[in-house]
Amino acid sequence: MQPLSAEQTMTTRWNRKDLLGLRELSAGEINLVLETADAFKQVGTREIKKVPALRGKTLVNFFVEPSTRTRTSFELAALRLSADIINISAEASSLTKGETLKDTARNLEALHADILVIRHSSAGAPQFLAERVSSSVINAGDGAHEHPTQGLLDVYTIRERRGRIEGLNVAIVGDILFSRVARSNIFALTKLGARVTLVGPSTLVPREFEKFGVTVSHDLESVLPQADVVNLLRIQHERQRNEYFPGLGEYIRLFGLTRERAKLLKPDCLIMHPGPINRGVEIDSELADGAQSVILDQVTNGLAVRMAVLYLCGGIAA
Amino acid sequence: MQPLSAEQTMTTRWNRKDLLGLRELSAGEINLVLETADAFKQVGTREIKKVPALRGKTLVNFFVEPSTRTRTSFELAALRLSADIINISAEASSLTKGETLKDTARNLEALHADILVIRHSSAGAPQFLAERVSSSVINAGDGAHEHPTQGLLDVYTIRERRGRIEGLNVAIVGDILFSRVARSNIFALTKLGARVTLVGPSTLVPREFEKFGVTVSHDLESVLPQADVVNLLRIQHERQRNEYFPGLGEYIRLFGLTRERAKLLKPDCLIMHPGPINRGVEIDSELADGAQSVILDQVTNGLAVRMAVLYLCGGIAA
Amino acid sequence: MQPLSAEQTMTTRWNRKDLLGLRELSAGEINLVLETADAFKQVGTREIKKVPALRGKTLVNFFVEPSTRTRTSFELAALRLSADIINISAEASSLTKGETLKDTARNLEALHADILVIRHSSAGAPQFLAERVSSSVINAGDGAHEHPTQGLLDVYTIRERRGRIEGLNVAIVGDILFSRVARSNIFALTKLGARVTLVGPSTLVPREFEKFGVTVSHDLESVLPQADVVNLLRIQHERQRNEYFPGLGEYIRLFGLTRERAKLLKPDCLIMHPGPINRGVEIDSELADGAQSVILDQVTNGLAVRMAVLYLCGGIAA
Repeated sequence: MQPLSAEQTMTTRWNRKDLLGLRELSAGEINLVLETADAFKQVGTREIKKVPALRGKTLVNFFVEPSTRTRTSFELAALRLSADIINISAEASSLTKGETLKDTARNLEALHADILVIRHSSAGAPQFLAERVSSSVINAGDGAHEHPTQGLLDVYTIRERRGRIEGLNVAIVGDILFSRVARSNIFALTKLGARVTLVGPSTLVPREFEKFGVTVSHDLESVLPQADVVNLLRIQHERQRNEYFPGLGEYIRLFGLTRERAKLLKPDCLIMHPGPINRGVEIDSELADGAQSVILDQVTNGLAVRMAVLYLCGGIAA
Repeated sequence: MQPLSAEQTMTTRWNRKDLLGLRELSAGEINLVLETADAFKQVGTREIKKVPALRGKTLVNFFVEPSTRTRTSFELAALRLSADIINISAEASSLTKGETLKDTARNLEALHADILVIRHSSAGAPQFLAERVSSSVINAGDGAHEHPTQGLLDVYTIRERRGRIEGLNVAIVGDILFSRVARSNIFALTKLGARVTLVGPSTLVPREFEKFGVTVSHDLESVLPQADVVNLLRIQHERQRNEYFPGLGEYIRLFGLTRERAKLLKPDCLIMHPGPINRGVEIDSELADGAQSVILDQVTNGLAVRMAVLYLCGGIAA
Repeated sequence: MQPLSAEQTMTTRWNRKDLLGLRELSAGEINLVLETADAFKQVGTREIKKVPALRGKTLVNFFVEPSTRTRTSFELAALRLSADIINISAEASSLTKGETLKDTARNLEALHADILVIRHSSAGAPQFLAERVSSSVINAGDGAHEHPTQGLLDVYTIRERRGRIEGLNVAIVGDILFSRVARSNIFALTKLGARVTLVGPSTLVPREFEKFGVTVSHDLESVLPQADVVNLLRIQHERQRNEYFPGLGEYIRLFGLTRERAKLLKPDCLIMHPGPINRGVEIDSELADGAQSVILDQVTNGLAVRMAVLYLCGGIAA
């Protein structure tokens, strides 16, 4: 990491009750989350992995779109901060009785929910809520908009392994167009000074993305040799519409990180994936478990980053 | 509230392990719950919203009929009393393996469940269990029978806003015939001295209800001017059978609380709804969010009332 | 129980991070679990039913096959040891997104899950995980392989009522071929010196089982008079394939414990069933609730035995 000087850190203070996206954060705010996560990461190595920071606070995990992985990570982060947790899933919720999102939110607020972690298939749903409730709202993924804690845990993991973000070449490979993970990564990485290249078929990585200050490429093999980090996005067959997606075999042939293709990588290039992995599709199975892979570090760091976010936002809402 | 004298309160003691319905409670017992809820309501305003009253006790939330709203409210109430909580839903449960309700209950008792909160589509299921287990059984809604904590939170909310129940004119509007909420409200309100008028189509509000000491009307506009409280029940399309229900458009035309119709209300008349609201059906959307609405107070008060019920019944079973 | 001498107990120490089956345990290890469960059983009778043994540890209940009963028992056991608990069910999990079991396990480990309780429809799934993660893995039932905590709670219950296992005649009745409960019982009982007889139709109780040191019979009425314990396994219509199973009526006629047939039992013979009971199939309803039945003791003891297992394995993994 390009560390902030003591004064810079001291002068950046957190004053957001919500975390809706990374686009609106400053580099200083992002660094403040990463430094707070450093402190919480140590908690995970202790015998008793709990701190009383959110004792007596109530966190609602409100997942209108299913996700074991992210839900579990937020739940564990909240448990380690000693919060009380309520899980509400889409199927179980009153939404099936036709209640509006606004009514659900106001009801959760009336129940004194201090923090509302929401995953929703509609871009903007977390912001809609955040404007209407005094509870902290944390976006756990909304449509194709943002997945800010994923972006934060990704830059945290790169910084941990490489000591900095600034000046690194980061390739993000796959379905950029429909990916909230890609968008949150782009915002975090460019704000912290990385050079980002988006790689994938032209249907999924249109030129318009260059407006975000990134490079667009449709040729993976020309990008790999310069990369310090390759972040492989999950191919979601279920979501991909035929008109955009070239077919699974064709995708692997052009954009899969095979063992042959990995020989083009620098020896210290990091391989990342937000999971769950489709082994043999986005990435060769041995590479996923190999020395360059930091995929499980991402999972571990996700916990520390989410503790930091809950702690910072929860402290403002209180 | 028409307060009990010190002696009255002192002489009413809680000696029920179960809360199955309000029909069998005395006015003194109902007031004891409301006064206990007053004490717990303050807990919700503290920095740390927990008291150790049920520490080490186990509460099972056993919902054979889905309900996020009521389940969440009981779960939060139990968390704030420091109880341990197990959630069991219908689909997940052994009931799908053909186990009888009796066997399920006896198994939960064998697991030392101290409190069993049950929602069931069959009227009488909670009572059936309560007679067979030593655990406390709390009815969270059984068929068209009772929903006692809803009745209690409704009278709590009226008392909080108007200072008393006695002598108030309360109109309950909608599907009375199939409503456990209506029945629990009728019992609580009449015991505490309110004058209750039931309003709705004759198919859903039959004259037989007069045996409970209430007035029956099929003309909403004639009732509104005298009302101190209007409690609008949820129209449940899914449940309503065609032979009883006049059709949604017809219902709104005759019994919806529109803005035009609301002009008939006294300025201090309270508007209530147990939720979830069908905006534009039972009630105009602006009215639901307006100054006369206490709909979100009902949600907040539900937490305090449920803490009181768990505390009182849990103390007896111990 | 034939008690171990003080020295024997002292010299048996627990050094397994996982509990995958009873086949690989020594008699000394089984007795160590039972003695540890004795200590925890007393916790269930206290006012505050909690001990801080696993405070700050994280247990993941990972049920790929649904089971309210076993999941609830493990969850309560963990709550009473003050662990933090995450529930993951099959439907909700990323498995539905095609993630492999190995990836799921490594992700849970990366989240610092200390103990992983797994139920899976494939025999060997828990062992596969245990070899790949440093977390403790507890088998909560895997295919037709083993259900070790059920075997332990069954011998605990027999020992509690009869003071010993050695020399007792135990009949296990039903679908032995596909039963993990039967297998775990066979291993525990024979190691502790019981004489085990398996009873059922020849299709479901093949002679090959004699290699485990048990007797095979197809005639229930000839076995009942000698039995000290009759353990009736659940008939699982849903699983039984037609070619093995004689039909429900025929099964009841030949192997159901009817009231008439129960007259053949010794007065102090214990009747056991792992639940959920099919009343009127494996056992007459009155017998299930009668004086000889220890079915609910099994449920209560399951909690103590699971606390012991979590405590012993959790202590090794730490």
